[in-house]
Amino acid sequence: VNLYAVILCGGRGERFWPKSRRSRPKQFIPLFGTHTLTQQTSARIRPLCPTTRQLFVASPEFSGTLREQLGARAGLLHEPVGRNTAPAIAIAAAYLQHLDPKSAMVVLPADHMIEDQSGFIRSVRLAARLAEQGLLVTFGIPPTRPDTGYGYVQLGSRIAGRGKLTAHQVLAFKEKPARAVALRYVKAGSYVWNSGMFVWRTATILEAFAEHLPDFHARLVGYSRALGTRRASTVLRALYRDTEPVSIDYAVMEKARNVACVRAPFDWDDVGSWLALERHLPGDLRDNVASGSLVELDTSDCVVDTDSGIVATLGIKNLVIVRAADAVLVADRDHLDNLKKLLAKLAGVPGGQRYL
Amino acid sequence: VNLYAVILCGGRGERFWPKSRRSRPKQFIPLFGTHTLTQQTSARIRPLCPTTRQLFVASPEFSGTLREQLGARAGLLHEPVGRNTAPAIAIAAAYLQHLDPKSAMVVLPADHMIEDQSGFIRSVRLAARLAEQGLLVTFGIPPTRPDTGYGYVQLGSRIAGRGKLTAHQVLAFKEKPARAVALRYVKAGSYVWNSGMFVWRTATILEAFAEHLPDFHARLVGYSRALGTRRASTVLRALYRDTEPVSIDYAVMEKARNVACVRAPFDWDDVGSWLALERHLPGDLRDNVASGSLVELDTSDCVVDTDSGIVATLGIKNLVIVRAADAVLVADRDHLDNLKKLLAKLAGVPGGQRYL
Repeated sequence: VNLYAVILCGGRGERFWPKSRRSRPKQFIPLFGTHTLTQQTSARIRPLCPTTRQLFVASPEFSGTLREQLGARAGLLHEPVGRNTAPAIAIAAAYLQHLDPKSAMVVLPADHMIEDQSGFIRSVRLAARLAEQGLLVTFGIPPTRPDTGYGYVQLGSRIAGRGKLTAHQVLAFKEKPARAVALRYVKAGSYVWNSGMFVWRTATILEAFAEHLPDFHARLVGYSRALGTRRASTVLRALYRDTEPVSIDYAVMEKARNVACVRAPFDWDDVGSWLALERHLPGDLRDNVASGSLVELDTSDCVVDTDSGIVATLGIKNLVIVRAADAVLVADRDHLDNLKKLLAKLAGVPGGQRYL
Repeated sequence: VNLYAVILCGGRGERFWPKSRRSRPKQFIPLFGTHTLTQQTSARIRPLCPTTRQLFVASPEFSGTLREQLGARAGLLHEPVGRNTAPAIAIAAAYLQHLDPKSAMVVLPADHMIEDQSGFIRSVRLAARLAEQGLLVTFGIPPTRPDTGYGYVQLGSRIAGRGKLTAHQVLAFKEKPARAVALRYVKAGSYVWNSGMFVWRTATILEAFAEHLPDFHARLVGYSRALGTRRASTVLRALYRDTEPVSIDYAVMEKARNVACVRAPFDWDDVGSWLALERHLPGDLRDNVASGSLVELDTSDCVVDTDSGIVATLGIKNLVIVRAADAVLVADRDHLDNLKKLLAKLAGVPGGQRYL
């Protein structure tokens, strides 16, 4: 089989406001270092999929951004609107099936951080071997904390691999748990975080759509037939217009029986909030991390990011402080989950739209 | 007598960093509304002292700023370096004595806020009548809180005025008190804040310098003799070089016997920290005040000042947040007294000087 990378560039990145804006969501900004998360994702999979075998699924408004960040050789597939992961993966599968009937796909969200590239590549290789046998392979991350923001996968017997890199039967997919349940999962050792990364043959996932989402699949076939004709984009828009948002986990993975899970031996972070900076930047003696210039007195457990100038802090703790262009955010770290609510409020105040 | 205003423009305004900087201290920036505190002070005393009878004592580096803000008709007296209020007042007295032997002076810090102009003018008139009799007149502010940041004046018998506007003997000057002592002062009712505003005949204050600071006065006489000659600025620099910083309260007022105090019937604020914004701007339902655009969620008791763009806050309380040009300050309101320490630290970090 021929392996292609399908890199999902949806997501509005509101959790990284004000550095990320509607016109520059998280996956397209250099959150860490000089490269954007999308560029890092592209580079990470390149040993297995050169840029010419990478397909980026994104809103058309980001075509220019993608060309700028990835060059002219990457493939772009325009998603008319965001409908969560199942439709995005389905149209990428239809597109690849049309391009190369022997293709397999490694599906990667554009905005995840993985630093151990070699562990990642070895894991994708193992997953690709299982995918050749007709399995839908997901990647599970051994949890490092009882996080209630992720779904969990309950692993069964080992079916491949050895040592630190193993693949397993999947006993169950678990939705985002309550904290007590998450604690139990972490202690049990047999639960892993559902990472949202997958490997499968294109034919296998299309069969799964046919089985588990038959109405949608019927219309997807219409799109497949339109590919290569002038009708393709019109048909795609119609397909999306009539499709409800649904995740690939809910639509397919939780229902399919031919599922396997690779227990990831690599680090992984979905960079879900400003607190992720703490995991990727060195902290000072009082656990402050800063990207940009910070001068502080009596400050602890703060996360600071400034795109210019200086941030000075005095007698504070537990805050996230971000200065980006024309906006400053000051948030208690325990309230970051409400950032979307704050942005909804900002959208409603006179003149607020320009800051989104 | 002929009344002149002596407006003291010293003070580095560090307490309003980052809006005030070394090159633009507090008294020269429009903290409230469109006019600077210095412009407001000049306008406030104008009914008694037209601009041509106003003398601004300031560092030479602010000559351009003063000309810009006050026009060409205001008098400027250059203070070579800051040496607190006693030397500044002494050279202004020497200068006015040379200019007009029948002069009296109303001494006003440039950076105080008083909104009740008519109460202020009536008070200065009463003080000027007492000054004609050879008294050193200070203004005492009835305290509205047990502030430990001010000196207090203990008032004795009424010697002039009536109703809300009275002048009193002074029983004692009290240094900045401990909180329990300040509480007692406020309850007693006979203590007022020492405002740092004064009225006296020029001859009277010069006699007081001769009596209470004889060595300094001897050298001041040398400056008086040099006035009107080309030696004046050289002599002034030498005078300052050899003078220790000392306040007029410590050097003269606490020792003199011919002292009176006008109990001020007007509002007064020395705009001593960012918290002063709360006293001059309307608050929202949770006691946040903002100068500039603020959007907030779950925020209370915060003071926000931004010179551009927007500040967004989430789940915080008790903070002061200021964005000015290239710097952002986030401080707990109860730690604001340490702002100078923070700036000292900033001065020491590489590249920090440019933000001061």
